[in-house]
Amino acid sequence: MLETIRIVLVNPSHPGNIGACARAMKVMGLSQLYLVNPKSFPDPQATARATGAEDILEKTVVVEDVITALANCEVVYGMSARSRSLPWPTFTPRQMASQIIEYQQHRSTALLFGSERTGLTNEELALCHFQVQIPTQPEFKSLNLAAAVQVMVYELYLANYHSLSPNPTDDEALATVVQMEGFYEQLEQVMRKVDYLDPNHPKLLMQRLRRLFQRAQVNRTELNILRGILTAVQKRLIE
Amino acid sequence: MLETIRIVLVNPSHPGNIGACARAMKVMGLSQLYLVNPKSFPDPQATARATGAEDILEKTVVVEDVITALANCEVVYGMSARSRSLPWPTFTPRQMASQIIEYQQHRSTALLFGSERTGLTNEELALCHFQVQIPTQPEFKSLNLAAAVQVMVYELYLANYHSLSPNPTDDEALATVVQMEGFYEQLEQVMRKVDYLDPNHPKLLMQRLRRLFQRAQVNRTELNILRGILTAVQKRLIE
Repeated sequence: MLETIRIVLVNPSHPGNIGACARAMKVMGLSQLYLVNPKSFPDPQATARATGAEDILEKTVVVEDVITALANCEVVYGMSARSRSLPWPTFTPRQMASQIIEYQQHRSTALLFGSERTGLTNEELALCHFQVQIPTQPEFKSLNLAAAVQVMVYELYLANYHSLSPNPTDDEALATVVQMEGFYEQLEQVMRKVDYLDPNHPKLLMQRLRRLFQRAQVNRTELNILRGILTAVQKRLIE
Repeated sequence: MLETIRIVLVNPSHPGNIGACARAMKVMGLSQLYLVNPKSFPDPQATARATGAEDILEKTVVVEDVITALANCEVVYGMSARSRSLPWPTFTPRQMASQIIEYQQHRSTALLFGSERTGLTNEELALCHFQVQIPTQPEFKSLNLAAAVQVMVYELYLANYHSLSPNPTDDEALATVVQMEGFYEQLEQVMRKVDYLDPNHPKLLMQRLRRLFQRAQVNRTELNILRGILTAVQKRLIE
């Protein structure tokens, strides 16, 4: 579905940014890049920064004006940090992404980015249905063009493939309470045996050790290792 | 709070990426950049790509090895797209950010990024408490280093300043139902008057117009404009 979303860069002046945009898009599953009157394209710097996303550069469409780039689009989001005297309906990237994925999947959608120096003009923003602002420090809002594209396509990817987010990957079964109690018992035996733990003045030693291992959520392989160590130690202790 | 989070780049080979990282950090309110054995730093390319974040480059700390860069850190997140044969507890950037902001605010925290070519080695990841994977297309996971930093610091900024996210900014009062009905009435009069609407065969004309304006959520200034236009039209119609 993300394949159909068009990224439109207006008057990009640094060809490196074009390549970096292509790479950001490919990583997140987008592929339609339009350039409005770029300063230099194709360009070796664009190719160098694309590293692996040259296929997107090869089918990039270059046009003369913004209207042509957006001609058959149904919904256009304009990226701009600046609020205007006549404010446009404004969303965060996350709000935009959920809106696109939830409500606009069947529509032809474009994301419009202004030139590096000036951003979107009022006239360009007026072609958009909505404005998108990336939340930033109020004092320094100057995102690099490719970085802004990266944030947008990242949010789109997450909204679309939400269920694919990685989960903690250690899916090995954890030691049971009974297994852990057996371990603590053996550990305490060893500690007494070596006179590290004085049964008359145990202090908080076992408590502290329990807290440590509990926090770590020991799995069964690890438990076997720990017990194996203790058993091996016990076999070698002087009576 | 974000000021205290350290970004550590291991063996960065492209000085441009260092500058781009600094810019990404500054936009999102971070400032502590550590470089482990960079290929070239300071470097004009780093300065060029920092555009506005030169202050971060000036206080960037260059060290010889990873341990030194992480020495006094309490929690380290290692960025890596690769899952390992011994998997580390793995989070998404969003999970990482909420974990840091909610539970680790008082801890000295670092985000560790491997070199452009190889990413984090097993040995470097073993210095980390957790692994972070940016969700991407399974076939093409190769994010640019600065783009990966941008995603991470963006998520940190959002988690920290969640309440500062922009909201739709048009806070002018909307037209009431009664005001809109007055408008539709006047509109219909005009349409009849000019024989655009045949009262005997109205079709869905008014319905379609209503749907349009309702969807737009007309505010009061806009309503005054619309009615002003209609009134001006009415004054000029031939009887």
